Amino acid sequence: MTNHTFKGVWPALLTPVHSDGQPNESELEKLIELLISQEMDGLYLLGSTGQGFLFSEEERKFITQRTVQIVNGRLPVMVQVGAMNTEESIRLAKHAADNGADGISSVGPIYYAGGSEMAFTHYRRIAEATDLPFFPYQIGGAANRDVILRLLDLPQVKGMKLTTDKLLEIGSISNLSAGKWQLFSGADELMCQAAICGTAGAIGSFYNMFGPTCKYIRSSFLEGHVLEAQDFMLQFQGLIEKILPCIWTFIVRGMELKYGIRIGTPKPPLLAPEMPWTDEEVIAMMDAIDSFGLKEA
Amino acid sequence: MTNHTFKGVWPALLTPVHSDGQPNESELEKLIELLISQEMDGLYLLGSTGQGFLFSEEERKFITQRTVQIVNGRLPVMVQVGAMNTEESIRLAKHAADNGADGISSVGPIYYAGGSEMAFTHYRRIAEATDLPFFPYQIGGAANRDVILRLLDLPQVKGMKLTTDKLLEIGSISNLSAGKWQLFSGADELMCQAAICGTAGAIGSFYNMFGPTCKYIRSSFLEGHVLEAQDFMLQFQGLIEKILPCIWTFIVRGMELKYGIRIGTPKPPLLAPEMPWTDEEVIAMMDAIDSFGLKEA
Amino acid sequence: MTNHTFKGVWPALLTPVHSDGQPNESELEKLIELLISQEMDGLYLLGSTGQGFLFSEEERKFITQRTVQIVNGRLPVMVQVGAMNTEESIRLAKHAADNGADGISSVGPIYYAGGSEMAFTHYRRIAEATDLPFFPYQIGGAANRDVILRLLDLPQVKGMKLTTDKLLEIGSISNLSAGKWQLFSGADELMCQAAICGTAGAIGSFYNMFGPTCKYIRSSFLEGHVLEAQDFMLQFQGLIEKILPCIWTFIVRGMELKYGIRIGTPKPPLLAPEMPWTDEEVIAMMDAIDSFGLKEA
Amino acid sequence: MTNHTFKGVWPALLTPVHSDGQPNESELEKLIELLISQEMDGLYLLGSTGQGFLFSEEERKFITQRTVQIVNGRLPVMVQVGAMNTEESIRLAKHAADNGADGISSVGPIYYAGGSEMAFTHYRRIAEATDLPFFPYQIGGAANRDVILRLLDLPQVKGMKLTTDKLLEIGSISNLSAGKWQLFSGADELMCQAAICGTAGAIGSFYNMFGPTCKYIRSSFLEGHVLEAQDFMLQFQGLIEKILPCIWTFIVRGMELKYGIRIGTPKPPLLAPEMPWTDEEVIAMMDAIDSFGLKEA
Repeated sequence: MTNHTFKGVWPALLTPVHSDGQPNESELEKLIELLISQEMDGLYLLGSTGQGFLFSEEERKFITQRTVQIVNGRLPVMVQVGAMNTEESIRLAKHAADNGADGISSVGPIYYAGGSEMAFTHYRRIAEATDLPFFPYQIGGAANRDVILRLLDLPQVKGMKLTTDKLLEIGSISNLSAGKWQLFSGADELMCQAAICGTAGAIGSFYNMFGPTCKYIRSSFLEGHVLEAQDFMLQFQGLIEKILPCIWTFIVRGMELKYGIRIGTPKPPLLAPEMPWTDEEVIAMMDAIDSFGLKEA
Repeated sequence: MTNHTFKGVWPALLTPVHSDGQPNESELEKLIELLISQEMDGLYLLGSTGQGFLFSEEERKFITQRTVQIVNGRLPVMVQVGAMNTEESIRLAKHAADNGADGISSVGPIYYAGGSEMAFTHYRRIAEATDLPFFPYQIGGAANRDVILRLLDLPQVKGMKLTTDKLLEIGSISNLSAGKWQLFSGADELMCQAAICGTAGAIGSFYNMFGPTCKYIRSSFLEGHVLEAQDFMLQFQGLIEKILPCIWTFIVRGMELKYGIRIGTPKPPLLAPEMPWTDEEVIAMMDAIDSFGLKEA
Repeated sequence: MTNHTFKGVWPALLTPVHSDGQPNESELEKLIELLISQEMDGLYLLGSTGQGFLFSEEERKFITQRTVQIVNGRLPVMVQVGAMNTEESIRLAKHAADNGADGISSVGPIYYAGGSEMAFTHYRRIAEATDLPFFPYQIGGAANRDVILRLLDLPQVKGMKLTTDKLLEIGSISNLSAGKWQLFSGADELMCQAAICGTAGAIGSFYNMFGPTCKYIRSSFLEGHVLEAQDFMLQFQGLIEKILPCIWTFIVRGMELKYGIRIGTPKPPLLAPEMPWTDEEVIAMMDAIDSFGLKEA
Repeated sequence: MTNHTFKGVWPALLTPVHSDGQPNESELEKLIELLISQEMDGLYLLGSTGQGFLFSEEERKFITQRTVQIVNGRLPVMVQVGAMNTEESIRLAKHAADNGADGISSVGPIYYAGGSEMAFTHYRRIAEATDLPFFPYQIGGAANRDVILRLLDLPQVKGMKLTTDKLLEIGSISNLSAGKWQLFSGADELMCQAAICGTAGAIGSFYNMFGPTCKYIRSSFLEGHVLEAQDFMLQFQGLIEKILPCIWTFIVRGMELKYGIRIGTPKPPLLAPEMPWTDEEVIAMMDAIDSFGLKEA
């Protein structure tokens, strides 16, 4: 894998579950095959979207292993290994490496958040656990810059996942890491704006549902179709704002209606509140987004 | 257990660990016996101070079970059962009930923090899992008031743990819940200030180390020794500010020097950075705090 | 004037206005006479409560001059001279000194808020403009500590006005300035809590309306009546929370009903929205607060 | 003036001052002539950059009047009339209308910031004071949406000035006001990113210094030169981050070196700290930005 691996539009893979919260292997396989057929640029496993923090360590290992097997080299796979306990993250990182993942990623310390020294040490130990390219999350705030300067010296760190709507932080990290790192933005609704800040790719929930359209828009934007990107981003942001109060319900229903894939009810404390739209309305909302992709044809 | 159980000064029990991070049962026993001999008003298990979030579910159950056995009814025991996954919290709550704990407590949703509906549902499910008195954490911000109004209707909820330095929130919850709830403050350095806002007790880290002095000051303050409390709180706050950058190192070293109890290195991502003080200085810093307690004699 | 001047309960003096927004001299005189007869410990002019920022420079000078004349040495008078433009603050400070004020105070830079260097320079220039005791506001956040350490070297600075609900900041400033400064808290609803953090006095809006009761409670608390203070502070906080959405209307109506003093409609952009209470209810709400003062007799 | 007037790149005009802080009329004239010769799209007067809040009402009127005279219809002129006191803003608005300005703008309530009702009422009264197109500032936070929905009903409001780095707020206002409003972004370092969120133009400090280059980049970006815009925006953001601690000194020195225009020391509390660069370095830093504009030729 080269740096060219880590770019483009990567779905933050949903993890389909049974009604008891266990991973649903057959639906997972269907989803992965869908995203491969849609020519996504990579898969990002077990992040927030993939409910990574709500599965047990064993379940996370199982999902990783099965995904790598199903993908079978057709796409790069990056595994989010962040956990409350750094040792658990290290075990998950080693497991990902031993089972053929192409990269790892991790959130910072979750509950005990104590400044840049703690964040850096947490990241350093995960980085040093394997030889895989490592993409930690930005931490945010004042701590971020200090952490970044130190992460730039770790050979395993090849970029960051920047789940922020603060584009100045993205530009700042681009400037600090220019030529060394591949950056992924994490706010779907700022995908193109972040690209002007120097990101190499985007990782996000909505690329499970609108992968081809988003990939088309991002490429088309970089090739110069700015007004189309403007129209799309406003429409896309409008949709995301609208569904936010019932985002899980919308995604679960939308994936079933559009692709026949059953994601299942999210695991508590996540909630899937009832939503105010009929199936026809959900389909119309999804079609309005995908109409941008159709323009291409 | 009556409401009279849930008041006074409760150490947020440190969980002694071996060098491999496993619970250190014999040191745990020594610590519990110390705190009982000091006539603390209760023990709060497996919160932030107890590194609750860094132990596995099995370890948390083991620590709960052993603590209740060691205490053997000599003090009330409250177990923090919050976890990333609500189901895990429910299992921990049931385990606590089955093993003789006197109450449970829980932080709100940790990673997926999505407003008052999610927080309330998480708390409601934990509350309904057992008959134990339940003391959820305040959530903070706008969500808090809505959550509180709904929690007041749950019969298992008997109070809250208010880990905040926003005293107006404490006063507000006191007013909302007057006569129904027992409130515990969580910011040690505002112990007496919070008491004027209507708290029934205080739960905190430093009561492992300065339990008798803090208990004396709190009682003495409520009996009218305001200027003494003022002097103490300023000195206590000064100490806490000073040691904050190396708080774990200070606590671990202080507990060994003062009581001969080995807490052990905290589990990562927690850090125990080197501290700039000699043993003599640590002893002097602790003695300065305890000199307030001595005045009593 | 000695340090003993700057302590106790100081109303942040309301500035009565005519319907055209001009200062209402005769009502101002009535209010000042009232507060003197109530044995308040000092008067704080032209802060937020006094609408200081909404009067022209000439009007501020006029109000200062008239107040000092009316008071005629019966109470100490501190004048808030903060303005957007530092030069205007300096002119106001000199005017206050030339016209017999006992102290000055100032908010930090208002619109252009650029860190501790700007805040300190603004304060230093105001301090050095006169020989009056100077009580700048705390700035808040990280900038505060740096500003405080530098202010401690300015001979004119004799304390601070701490309009914050962060009691740890108050304790921290108390510790830093111990023995040198007189601190005033600014959050009325934390008057007693702040006193445990080492404040020498309290400056606030509600001491226009409830001066004697608040003065009694504060003294009584310091003498040891802690439970009474607890009861009062909860009731007082409850009132403040309740009236907050229409605070100006409540104050204006309450002052007329209780004392026959017409404060007048606040100057825009301040709003005095309609309030949901009858005169009888306003009187009952005020009486409930003052019932604490009556206990004394 | 049509809606076509309010778009493109508008310098937030610097207000040159003498050493005593008075407006420097001859340098003001030179600056205006420069910006007209550079074909800027409009001038924005007396905002933060123009030190609007640090001049007296009379000075603000004088600067407005002289600017409109000098411009003499060659460019549209928008005057920022926000002040602490709403009545002063209304007088400034009327003065701008009477003296030939093309539009007005205003910040929200400055010191007394009390929610959406206060902000809307402040804006409504300014809007209704004249027939000029009015461009209020976004307020930020939760208050913003409510204020916007109500501003959409005021016929004088023709857009907003969005001085924010939160691009989702910009997109959201674009969606709410689509087809009715012209939006200006205010964060220079996000000029192109904001354009994808639907802004019609940009108002900012750096367009005094880099107007032609920024105007070229913005147009070129909208025509499809995305990678050039990406390179420029990163370089531009890098410059702004670097000079931020001494921004006024850099601007003052740069304007003199590049254009021979003396802006003068900013008025206190603004600070112009010493900067670490020689004149040659300042020139090189400016040239690096302008090299993007040269590519065009």
